[in-house]
Amino acid sequence: MEKNSMPTKKDDVYGDHISHKFNDELMELKTEFLKMGGMVEAQVDNAILALVDGDGHLADEIRANDKKVDRMEVEIDEEATLIIARRQPTARDLRLVISVIKMVADLERVGDEAKKIAKLAIKLQEEGQAPRGYVEVRHIGTHVLSMLHDALDAFARLDSEQALRIMKEDKRVDEEYQAAARTLLTFMMEDTRNISRCMSVMWVLRALERVGDHACNIAENVIFMVKGEDVRHTPVEEAEKVVGR
Amino acid sequence: MEKNSMPTKKDDVYGDHISHKFNDELMELKTEFLKMGGMVEAQVDNAILALVDGDGHLADEIRANDKKVDRMEVEIDEEATLIIARRQPTARDLRLVISVIKMVADLERVGDEAKKIAKLAIKLQEEGQAPRGYVEVRHIGTHVLSMLHDALDAFARLDSEQALRIMKEDKRVDEEYQAAARTLLTFMMEDTRNISRCMSVMWVLRALERVGDHACNIAENVIFMVKGEDVRHTPVEEAEKVVGR
Repeated sequence: MEKNSMPTKKDDVYGDHISHKFNDELMELKTEFLKMGGMVEAQVDNAILALVDGDGHLADEIRANDKKVDRMEVEIDEEATLIIARRQPTARDLRLVISVIKMVADLERVGDEAKKIAKLAIKLQEEGQAPRGYVEVRHIGTHVLSMLHDALDAFARLDSEQALRIMKEDKRVDEEYQAAARTLLTFMMEDTRNISRCMSVMWVLRALERVGDHACNIAENVIFMVKGEDVRHTPVEEAEKVVGR
Repeated sequence: MEKNSMPTKKDDVYGDHISHKFNDELMELKTEFLKMGGMVEAQVDNAILALVDGDGHLADEIRANDKKVDRMEVEIDEEATLIIARRQPTARDLRLVISVIKMVADLERVGDEAKKIAKLAIKLQEEGQAPRGYVEVRHIGTHVLSMLHDALDAFARLDSEQALRIMKEDKRVDEEYQAAARTLLTFMMEDTRNISRCMSVMWVLRALERVGDHACNIAENVIFMVKGEDVRHTPVEEAEKVVGR
């Protein structure tokens, strides 16, 4: 059904070599992507810690590390573009490379959200009031981190069923986020002295909800890689049919 | 300096035909991208109108139109992937196609922000209180819309100097956004009955600020297409040197 990247007869002299090198390059691209994924996972995890523990030192570290994340984005993008130019991949291989280009932008944005949370952690620590909404932050944080982890795992194993489960989770995160936002609104109305602080926590929640969205984007790309069908903007029931095929 | 897509001697039979078709395909890709750009510009413009005029009918239209934007994203993505698979572009042509794949994701997200604003417009209309922060919405809205328009224009004309100007604008939008957010915070503190409403307007402002970010991403891609250098995550002074070359 699909053209693969194995050498044809006319490649018999260099074919095997070229194909091996090509496969190595694809593997390397995957590895680098997963390495960047691990980095941004740690960034989000630490950002939540920095917030709830009021750890300004850790928050500073996160902000510094974001530069490394940015550098990885540029490097992986370059590598992917080089593979297309040199190896002219088709079918499944091409889908992999293009998906990496798209997903790397998602990872970079997850990194940005972690940086935002770190900044807010510093602001909240300086203001030094009693924590409000931290239970919600921890709860949603744990949820989106596990989505991100599972999305990267689904990519590593090209597991479209796991990817589908992540797409389903996204709705639940949105509901949790809405509930948490309502809770914070109540705190704000109770006492105007809470407003500034609660606004900061609201931005943290929004950042976490975005992390969930990006995990979901990665999951959609995994389904595209495996099944060759674009399930963005399709209802989950449709995606379910695609994965079931 | 660069390999271009013109046919070489050995293509003499089909070469001209292939090259013409290839050029047509690239042109078509650009045209479709700009069409989608025009669509999301109109979506943002109308979303601001729907908000300040309290026009629920217009807001509904925007939400319906977002499906068209989503469809265009999928179509352009498919077209770009097909071009890579069929034409195996290199150098400048490859940069164009890959940039379109990236920028189309930005346009789709701008569309999402317009949809969010339309939703908030409906919510605010239903609550029916006196407008607060609409001056700020109008002001920042006009600013980011002109950035988006100029970014698409810079793409159409492959004008890296205009792209650079947009990168510089982004900082000003951030400052305007910060100032507007402070104003809204003051309204919230003055009277707790303002809180829910002001929160909604705050989300509108955040959505508009994101539109500015996406315009900036498009501008960075234009510089990449023209100059072959990745200026994301580089200070504006660095980007200035790249464009000046």
